[in-house]
Amino acid sequence: MNAKNLTDTAQTIASYIHRTPVLTSRLINEVSGADLYFKCENFQRMGAFKMRGATHAILQLSEEQKSKGVVTHSSGNFAQALSLSAQSLGVKAYIVMPSNAPQVKKDAVKDYGGEIIECPPTHKDREETANRIQTEKGATFLHPYNDHNVILGQGTAALELLEDHPDLTYIFAPVGGGGLIAGTSLAAHFFGKNCTVIGGEPFEVDDAYRALQSGTLEINETTNTSADGLKMPLGDLTFPIIQQYVSEIIRVDEEEIITAMRLIWERMKIIIEPSCAVPLAALLKEKERFQNEKIGIILSGGNVDLSNLPF
Amino acid sequence: MNAKNLTDTAQTIASYIHRTPVLTSRLINEVSGADLYFKCENFQRMGAFKMRGATHAILQLSEEQKSKGVVTHSSGNFAQALSLSAQSLGVKAYIVMPSNAPQVKKDAVKDYGGEIIECPPTHKDREETANRIQTEKGATFLHPYNDHNVILGQGTAALELLEDHPDLTYIFAPVGGGGLIAGTSLAAHFFGKNCTVIGGEPFEVDDAYRALQSGTLEINETTNTSADGLKMPLGDLTFPIIQQYVSEIIRVDEEEIITAMRLIWERMKIIIEPSCAVPLAALLKEKERFQNEKIGIILSGGNVDLSNLPF
Repeated sequence: MNAKNLTDTAQTIASYIHRTPVLTSRLINEVSGADLYFKCENFQRMGAFKMRGATHAILQLSEEQKSKGVVTHSSGNFAQALSLSAQSLGVKAYIVMPSNAPQVKKDAVKDYGGEIIECPPTHKDREETANRIQTEKGATFLHPYNDHNVILGQGTAALELLEDHPDLTYIFAPVGGGGLIAGTSLAAHFFGKNCTVIGGEPFEVDDAYRALQSGTLEINETTNTSADGLKMPLGDLTFPIIQQYVSEIIRVDEEEIITAMRLIWERMKIIIEPSCAVPLAALLKEKERFQNEKIGIILSGGNVDLSNLPF
Repeated sequence: MNAKNLTDTAQTIASYIHRTPVLTSRLINEVSGADLYFKCENFQRMGAFKMRGATHAILQLSEEQKSKGVVTHSSGNFAQALSLSAQSLGVKAYIVMPSNAPQVKKDAVKDYGGEIIECPPTHKDREETANRIQTEKGATFLHPYNDHNVILGQGTAALELLEDHPDLTYIFAPVGGGGLIAGTSLAAHFFGKNCTVIGGEPFEVDDAYRALQSGTLEINETTNTSADGLKMPLGDLTFPIIQQYVSEIIRVDEEEIITAMRLIWERMKIIIEPSCAVPLAALLKEKERFQNEKIGIILSGGNVDLSNLPF
């Protein structure tokens, strides 16, 4: 993938997404000792950066593929993003969800025009059900992150951030399946001026941290983290990009995540989900190393259940 | 007061405040049927528009007055705003607070450099204590809203909004003591193009609604509203401006306030306090009248206790 792939992607999806604002906070700058620029993907359509990758992936399909629809298995933001971007583009979206998914998530998918196909709550059932829909409907399977078109789409957030602030020395992003940070690292490589990309990852699901050490994909035996958007492991397409272009991953514990989340809520007056607080938590944990640096932080999303907050 | 008073005020305070962003929401536009522009004073320094009026009022003092400090009685946003603006300007701030004020509010005033003087929790005690500080310290009393310099300061939010969006046909603002809506109505009168200003007020503290009907200041016997920033009655300086320049006041009940608050939290991903949701609640209540209009809404502040949310 090259620089032109990224700029082409940005141009292709521009009319379907928001160019999100970059906010700053005098107080969080004081707390961190650095000069922070928050790219607010929590203000993105549907409330998360996933709109970028989903839109781009659909737009790459042929007219015949589009006419038969798309399918994914997800109970998170990608399910909603694929539903809404498909709806915007006049494409049918089939969303395979485990039967025990929260009603609020099912409702959101329906609101955005997605058709839900329920399956038993195991990974094997999800995959088999998605395969069945591909066969029966001729729908194209789109993976939430392990897909080059999705990665390029997610990278446009950092591309916009670097257009607004070309002299960032670091960009911090969260690491789940790796789509966002892979795209971010490509944008920093091609468009930054010696801009280093650092990932933030919960200790509880630190497969990416371990994978960078071992040189091979790792799994998470358990996923006990409040950062529910970061539970998936890296994929075989996101991992090599991360190996090549991400400088390091800093791990944080659950208390550090909630403290950073609350700091952003209280001081910036914006709503972010726990996953979204992980990069700031990582920065604050090792803030001595980043004094006076000019740092971008990707705030990935703002979809939280207001009736069930961690504070 | 004239147009030049407002532009002078804006220039005077510019380097001490944030020029806050104006956000839009595709979904809330759909819900309302109008084209809404939210002026985000919840992103203002200290989290509320009150920084504008407090800063302006202090800047109008003589050097001798500044050297002796300022005093107010408040347990809300104005106490914090006066503390922080005084600190920014190297001026001492004495804040008279009732002894039963929540610790979190006392801590906030201290954090911003204000000196708290506690008094018994009656209005008479607050006034007497403030009088005593004026006598003992030579400090200048600044009223939270019934002060022309404060009113002009608060009006700069709407002035900025109209600079960004000159063709608004309406601006909605909340009504408490009237400083914000009085300033807003002056800005709309001098800088809008036939821009009508409408107030939102909780039924529970509807003294302004009644005052516009009776032609005389009214009182609130009780103040049982979640919109704790709107409990104070109009003052004799804010009322005549409101009589002249505010078109009408729409009253809303507590459920309508919380519904509007939740809509902004969930869909705009920003944190606003209950008082701040009142103008949107008022608009939604009578939305049929405002279809397809281009409407500004002043989001006044974002200081909420995250441990004690109404949902």
